Amino acid sequence: MSEPTSNIKWHAATITRELRQQQNQHRSAILWFTGLSGAGKSTLAHAVEQELFLSGCRSFVLDGDNVRHGLCADLGFSDADRRENIRRISELAKLMLEAGLITLTAFISPFSAERQMARNLVAPADFIEIYCRCDLSTCEQRDVKGLYQKARRGEIAHFTGISSPYQPPEQAELIVDTGRDSLEECVQQVLHLLRQRGIIQGSNNAC
Amino acid sequence: MSEPTSNIKWHAATITRELRQQQNQHRSAILWFTGLSGAGKSTLAHAVEQELFLSGCRSFVLDGDNVRHGLCADLGFSDADRRENIRRISELAKLMLEAGLITLTAFISPFSAERQMARNLVAPADFIEIYCRCDLSTCEQRDVKGLYQKARRGEIAHFTGISSPYQPPEQAELIVDTGRDSLEECVQQVLHLLRQRGIIQGSNNAC
Repeated sequence: MSEPTSNIKWHAATITRELRQQQNQHRSAILWFTGLSGAGKSTLAHAVEQELFLSGCRSFVLDGDNVRHGLCADLGFSDADRRENIRRISELAKLMLEAGLITLTAFISPFSAERQMARNLVAPADFIEIYCRCDLSTCEQRDVKGLYQKARRGEIAHFTGISSPYQPPEQAELIVDTGRDSLEECVQQVLHLLRQRGIIQGSNNAC
Repeated sequence: MSEPTSNIKWHAATITRELRQQQNQHRSAILWFTGLSGAGKSTLAHAVEQELFLSGCRSFVLDGDNVRHGLCADLGFSDADRRENIRRISELAKLMLEAGLITLTAFISPFSAERQMARNLVAPADFIEIYCRCDLSTCEQRDVKGLYQKARRGEIAHFTGISSPYQPPEQAELIVDTGRDSLEECVQQVLHLLRQRGIIQGSNNAC
């Protein structure tokens, strides 16, 4: 930090995360959604965000749509690139955590080691892993983007669930059955956890 | 999941930048501070942020301290790495812009082409380039981090102003004379511009 001793007025001012949290009237946190393609991670994250917003919270969703074409546009899907992709997303989420936002990340993030790396970047209370559990067959039946069909035809290499493994979380803070329960039920489960953990307050007004 | 019985509810909800701006009661924007090492970019950005915070605005400062050791920890100072550094910072700032934050970036960003790249990522009204103008001799005299001394001794390669060029902005939205004016004066000039451009409101209460 540049701090010229010659000018006492040129000192560093710092707005801390704590101050931002006070301003926002809620804690910041990282909600790390993981699960197969088609399990509903991004949909759930956006639906949770909508509820948070309506309650006056500050949040942001990071998903393939806004990260893969921008910050990570230079990365492919090799193991190394996938690792780097998750690393950047983790660092990005950490900055947004500092900025006072409830940061929701919605990426397959199939490997335990990478999710652990993301978790290790922040304090234990700041990282909430949410496993969107949904049978491969259900995801494949939905096949919203037609990706499973392509993967089965061999047109996509290293496709999670087909030609690349998914390692289910063993210590997720929350498991939501996105293949069984309605979106609304899943949203309520996430909000309940956020209240339990003191990230948001109240039962009617989330923040 | 008994397929899309509840599928109609599994649609994407989206909280837009416009909604966030309404919630925050100010526009979001990128304030891109550029200038020599020691010109006071980071100090000024943090001081502006303090004023914004006290007025109830949402903002965040990106600088070497929180980016170089994290998101860009894998990058060095070669031309290619510097370009990639600025590219990532630009993408990061763009996401924070979407998140409704007044995003202040404080990096030397010596090359016009890279600043132009950052500018091109967003709409013209969203990018405010602020040139922190300060003589090399003043920066070198301050030498807060002892970097100029090291650079003069040849211990740092490609050091801007010594062994690598700095290309001053030709169309900066604002020039602040950080080598001449007090921090408070510079802060007021930035806030004045933000009010002029309708990013923040009022004259007493910034937001």
